[in-house]
Amino acid sequence: MHSMPHILERKRDAEELSKDEFDYICENIDSIPREQLGAFLMACQINGLSEKETSNLTHSMLNAGQKMNPEPNRVDKHSTGGVGDKMSIILAPALRACGAIVPMLAGRGLAHTGGTIDKLESIPGFNTGLTLDEMKSNPCFISRQTEDIAPADRILYSIRDITATVPQIGLITASIISKKAAEGLERLILDVKCGKAAFMKNHEDAKELAKSMVATGKSLGINVTAQITEMDNPIGNMFGNSHEIAECIQCLKGEGPEDTMELVYAQADALGFDIRSVIADGSALIEFQNMCMRQGVSEKIISQLTSNPWSILPRSEITTHLNSNKSGFISSIDALIIGTILCELGAGRTGSSDEIQHGVGAILHKNIGEYISKGENLLEINSQTKLDSTLIEALKSSITISTEKVEKSSRIIEIIS
Amino acid sequence: MHSMPHILERKRDAEELSKDEFDYICENIDSIPREQLGAFLMACQINGLSEKETSNLTHSMLNAGQKMNPEPNRVDKHSTGGVGDKMSIILAPALRACGAIVPMLAGRGLAHTGGTIDKLESIPGFNTGLTLDEMKSNPCFISRQTEDIAPADRILYSIRDITATVPQIGLITASIISKKAAEGLERLILDVKCGKAAFMKNHEDAKELAKSMVATGKSLGINVTAQITEMDNPIGNMFGNSHEIAECIQCLKGEGPEDTMELVYAQADALGFDIRSVIADGSALIEFQNMCMRQGVSEKIISQLTSNPWSILPRSEITTHLNSNKSGFISSIDALIIGTILCELGAGRTGSSDEIQHGVGAILHKNIGEYISKGENLLEINSQTKLDSTLIEALKSSITISTEKVEKSSRIIEIIS
Repeated sequence: MHSMPHILERKRDAEELSKDEFDYICENIDSIPREQLGAFLMACQINGLSEKETSNLTHSMLNAGQKMNPEPNRVDKHSTGGVGDKMSIILAPALRACGAIVPMLAGRGLAHTGGTIDKLESIPGFNTGLTLDEMKSNPCFISRQTEDIAPADRILYSIRDITATVPQIGLITASIISKKAAEGLERLILDVKCGKAAFMKNHEDAKELAKSMVATGKSLGINVTAQITEMDNPIGNMFGNSHEIAECIQCLKGEGPEDTMELVYAQADALGFDIRSVIADGSALIEFQNMCMRQGVSEKIISQLTSNPWSILPRSEITTHLNSNKSGFISSIDALIIGTILCELGAGRTGSSDEIQHGVGAILHKNIGEYISKGENLLEINSQTKLDSTLIEALKSSITISTEKVEKSSRIIEIIS
Repeated sequence: MHSMPHILERKRDAEELSKDEFDYICENIDSIPREQLGAFLMACQINGLSEKETSNLTHSMLNAGQKMNPEPNRVDKHSTGGVGDKMSIILAPALRACGAIVPMLAGRGLAHTGGTIDKLESIPGFNTGLTLDEMKSNPCFISRQTEDIAPADRILYSIRDITATVPQIGLITASIISKKAAEGLERLILDVKCGKAAFMKNHEDAKELAKSMVATGKSLGINVTAQITEMDNPIGNMFGNSHEIAECIQCLKGEGPEDTMELVYAQADALGFDIRSVIADGSALIEFQNMCMRQGVSEKIISQLTSNPWSILPRSEITTHLNSNKSGFISSIDALIIGTILCELGAGRTGSSDEIQHGVGAILHKNIGEYISKGENLLEINSQTKLDSTLIEALKSSITISTEKVEKSSRIIEIIS
């Protein structure tokens, strides 16, 4: 028989925990006192988890909950989170247009990073709370994790969030992979963000996380590839919830920014699908409409949304235009500053309120490598309140303009599989 | 402003916490989520606490609660716990007979070790739950910690107990010294037990704990001495709750076993009082009677208790006599085995029940160094249930008899001050 004090003693002393011990924790998660879970997570954080422990914890978290049935061509993607990171909303319907089944469980925004669920909730009527039964019969959806999928992860995550135990490779891996494994996937592509606006600030940490997730996913029988991608500069030209939906529709129409499409194409390629033709011929856009319809959006709204997004999506009324105070080439845009300011303006949760303002966002008129003349419009902010001068200065300082020509480089740093 | 996640982050990364941060924890202990306290304790356990942190935590724990007023000759003793460790009950009234003021906060038994409070509760009517006001006007008492003294310690201790964070020198120090400092002491003697039946199994660990407690006590203005004493063999001849009260009365009458009296005398000496004469002239016994009276025991019971202890104290009815199966000199008695068996028989708490059997106990008829003949009575057990053969064998195996003469040595290993 296992007991938490004994398990804690072993993990405290940096011993390797067994599959049985992780099972015990995940199966009894509701009745284990919170102080023991806090102590467990801190011991894992400080002493680390081996590859075997990570795989066992992931299995235990998966098995303590409900699962969807595995089948061929069932694929999904997960990103560790960034600014302007909207690719899931383009990728899912495009993959569906190629015949894939896409059961995408997604999350809300965290700190300065956006959340796919928050973005989709900009669309009036979009139901992000499908039940497990609804998911099982749905060929392509993006919805929130349910209570019955990896319930241990939900509880452990809520504790990690307040106990300084978020940044542990094994715990991150188990949290992500247990939920993805519950989707019954054949293949999975991971976008591991790396850079100043990412969770992993440097290549080394991103690589360690990528390797851990790939190995753990494989131990669960999933064909996993990880792409480590640059997350210093924001992705695309539109940031915020409504704003990113608007940009996704552009992308699905084949009019998306180059950096965004580079990532979407690479993700689909890694899953074995070439989505370029379904974007070009409009069938990806139709699958986006089908997905919206299956998730409760009315036909009328869907049609208006795709023809004229801003006739449907909320957009905050106060507009601030930032003009460039010099001429030159855009060499860098600080995604962390932009993400943090948008979050504070209401696009994300700041702790004081769980409500977010879907209409708060920003539009970049010139992106990396482009030439801008002094006085030309660089960035547009839509907000609920007037921006004060400190905020405007911070936004201006987030964009660097160089007199020398700037080469645009690929965001893909490394591929781990 | 401090926040728990930030404090946890710092302690997780082995940074030194400040006095302010410990104050924040102790002052907000009731509202801090339990998972954060569990994580905090595990981080302290794994990364350790510096001498400065230990002193600061102790101060914070002390200051978050009520205190008694300091005055000259206010003295106390604390033991880290052993088997047959009954000295407090002899020492307190003896010190009082010398004119000292003794405000002794004591605890219950833990695992195989006995607790002063449990022992005193063998005496019908003895009130171990004095209020802080009752303590303030009492010149010599032994009572439980109250809700208002070091409340943070009470909560932290209850969490340490179930999170594998008991054996951390700094946390142990803060827990013990904060309570002792709340007593307003001028001097304090610490009995740091060392050996197989002690919390600290080896001299090195015992020394580290002793040094930590002495330094921390001094940082709070208390004159502290620690005696590291051997805890392989049980102390005295009687073990259990009623049994130890009976032996204490023998000691107060000047008829106590040599090893027990060695420790009591050394403890009093370290506090600056020679109690030999007050034991010899009966005034210590009178102060024991006075203490009982002030703590609610009736005069009739006190008089019977001191003249014929077993006419008052509960004693479990099933008696098992263990006879020696060979002749020779007693060379060792395994206190851990005896303590554990008595605990299981009901003298302590085993986890399943909080009720203890005060009448369960053991009487040793021959002690270390004494000669015993084959067939002679060695140990007597009083229990509620019949002892099975496994238990009898275990008890027999706990006592080693040597054919060579055994030198009795002092229990005092080292003095730290």
